[in-house]
Amino acid sequence: MRIAYADIVTELSRVLRRHGMAADRAAESAQLFADNTLDGVASHGVNRFPRVVSYIEKGYIDVGAQPELEASLGAIERWNGHQGMGNLNARYCMSRAIELAQMHGIGAVALHNTNHWMRGGAYGWQAADRGFAALCWTNTMPNMPAWGGSDRKIGNNPLVVAIPRPEGGHIVFDAALSQYSYGKIESMALEGKRLPFPGGYDESGNLTTDPDAITRTWRVLPIGYWKGSGLSIVLDLLAAILSGGNTTCQIGRLGGDEYRLSQVFIAFNISALPNPTLIQETLYDAITDLKASSVPAGESSVKYPGESALYRRRENTENGIPVDSAVWKTILAL
Amino acid sequence: MRIAYADIVTELSRVLRRHGMAADRAAESAQLFADNTLDGVASHGVNRFPRVVSYIEKGYIDVGAQPELEASLGAIERWNGHQGMGNLNARYCMSRAIELAQMHGIGAVALHNTNHWMRGGAYGWQAADRGFAALCWTNTMPNMPAWGGSDRKIGNNPLVVAIPRPEGGHIVFDAALSQYSYGKIESMALEGKRLPFPGGYDESGNLTTDPDAITRTWRVLPIGYWKGSGLSIVLDLLAAILSGGNTTCQIGRLGGDEYRLSQVFIAFNISALPNPTLIQETLYDAITDLKASSVPAGESSVKYPGESALYRRRENTENGIPVDSAVWKTILAL
Repeated sequence: MRIAYADIVTELSRVLRRHGMAADRAAESAQLFADNTLDGVASHGVNRFPRVVSYIEKGYIDVGAQPELEASLGAIERWNGHQGMGNLNARYCMSRAIELAQMHGIGAVALHNTNHWMRGGAYGWQAADRGFAALCWTNTMPNMPAWGGSDRKIGNNPLVVAIPRPEGGHIVFDAALSQYSYGKIESMALEGKRLPFPGGYDESGNLTTDPDAITRTWRVLPIGYWKGSGLSIVLDLLAAILSGGNTTCQIGRLGGDEYRLSQVFIAFNISALPNPTLIQETLYDAITDLKASSVPAGESSVKYPGESALYRRRENTENGIPVDSAVWKTILAL
Repeated sequence: MRIAYADIVTELSRVLRRHGMAADRAAESAQLFADNTLDGVASHGVNRFPRVVSYIEKGYIDVGAQPELEASLGAIERWNGHQGMGNLNARYCMSRAIELAQMHGIGAVALHNTNHWMRGGAYGWQAADRGFAALCWTNTMPNMPAWGGSDRKIGNNPLVVAIPRPEGGHIVFDAALSQYSYGKIESMALEGKRLPFPGGYDESGNLTTDPDAITRTWRVLPIGYWKGSGLSIVLDLLAAILSGGNTTCQIGRLGGDEYRLSQVFIAFNISALPNPTLIQETLYDAITDLKASSVPAGESSVKYPGESALYRRRENTENGIPVDSAVWKTILAL
C-alpha cells in the first residue's frame, strides 16, 4: 500500500504522544521516521517504529529526555543523550555541530548515552540542507565477528559523509560496515535467493552467499574483510572516548538490547570557504565524470551516493510512500 | 638484507640533499621513509623512494616548497602544499591540526596541491605520539572503477584513524579503499599465487582472485563493492572542496602521474577531555575484549589496528630493517 507523507507523520506522532512524548517533539520524531521511509529506507522508517515503541515501553528510551552539555573544548563538545529518543538526539546534535561550525569553521559534537539514530543519512541530509558538509557515525551493539574471530565482538557502526549541492542534489554516503544488513539477509532468505556476494559465514566457518546459513550463525562479514573490521574498531573507540560513552563491547554487556550508544557529529562550514561557486563547479565536474563511467551493455549508469534516495523521494512524494500493510496495521493498533 | 635505521636515514637524506633539499628537511623526510620501512610498510618506505626521486627530477615535487596558509575559519584552515615533498607537507599539516586542536578541542587542516604522503598511518602515529586522536585521508589518481563502471574513475583514497594509548601502543587504522594494493597484486602474480579473496576483474568483466588477470585489466575492486566505491567518492570530494584542490578526476587529467593531491588532517585533543584515566581504561577493556575473540583452532588471536606495525617496529629495531637488496643498490647509486 502507499500512504501519504502527512498521514504517516500524523499516525506516528499520535503513537509517540500516547507514549508520553511532547507534541512538538513527537511531530519532529515522526517526521524523521517518515523522511526515512520517503527516501526508500523503510528498514529504518516505519518498519522499525514498532520496535522503537517497544524500547519506550521497556524504559530504554526516555521520551522526555533531552541532550545536555557535559563538556566543551570550544569547537568540540560532549553531550549526554540521557537515553532520549535516538533520532531527536541525533538531529539536535548535528544541529549543534552546525552552530559550532558557524563559529569555528568546523564543529563537532560527541554524544553518549543515546539511542539508535535510525537512518544515519538523515543527519547528513540535514547538514547538507543547511549548506554544511558533514561526517558522522555511531557505534552499535556487537553484531559482527572481528576479522579472524568467530564470535560477535564489533559493531557494524554506520558511517555518513554528506556534501551539499544546490537544489537538494546533495551527495550523501550512508553505509553500515557489514556487507549486508540483517534485514537484507533475512529478506533474501525469505525469498529463497542467494546473496550476490558473500555476506557472512556458515556453520563450518566458511564464507557463504546463502542467507539461510548466515541466519543460522548470525556471523556477518565486514566490508573488505580485515579492512572493514579495523575501521569498525576505530570508529567505535573514537566515538566512545570523545563522548565518554559506551564502546560496542560495553553495549554488549547491557543485556542484549541495543541502547546507550555513542555517536559523533562533525560539520564543516564550506560556504564560508573562499570561492563557493568554484566548489559547486568542482562537484558538478566530478559527478559528471563519474556518471560518464563505461558500463557493461544493458546496465544503468553509475550512481553517486545519495542519488537513489533523491530519486525515490521524488517518486514517493508524487505517488505516496510504499508501506508494508502488516506493519501499518500494527502501527494503527499501537 | 637487513639495514640499521640510522643507515637508511643517512643514505636517503644524502640523496635528497643531492637533489637540492635543505639538510634539516632531508633528514626529516628520510626519517619518515625509514619509519615506514621500520614498521613493515616497505611499499611506502625505501621501495618507493626511487620513484619519489624520479618525481623530483620530473619537477612534480619541489624540494624547496613549504606549505602556505591560504584561508582560516578558526579551527579549520586551508593550506597550499605548493607541490612540496608529500611526506613533509603531511607531517607539517598534522602538526598544525594538533596546534588547532590544542586551541579549539578539534583542529583540521585541508591541504591542496601536495604530493603522495607515502604511508598515511605515519601521520596517525604522529598525532597519537603527541596524545591526540586523529582522522586523516588523501585522494589519489583515478585507480579503480566506481561500482557498476568498468573504467577507472575513482581513487583508493587511504583513510587513517588513530587513537593514542600509553607507551606507544596506539590504535592506528590505515587502509586504502581498494581490497588489495597494486603492489600486493603484482607480488602475488610474481609468486604465481591466487589472492585469498576477489581483488578485481578479469578481461570478461568477472570478479577474480587471479592476480595475473587483474594486472591485465588493472580494474581493482573497492572494499565492500558499492560501499567502498561510495566512500571513496565522498572522501575525494570532501578533501577537494575543503582544500580547494584537485579531485581524483582532476588529478587524472594531469597526464597519468600522481601529484597535486588533496588531503584532510583532523586532530582531537582527547587529553583535555574529562577523565583521561577512564578513557585509557575504556580502551584497555575494549582491546582486551577484542583479543578474547574465539578463533578457529590453530589460528592466532585477533589483532587490533596498529598492533602488527608495533610488533614489526620492535622486531626490526632489534634486528635491523629488511630491505630489498636490488632497491638498496638502486638507492646507493642515486
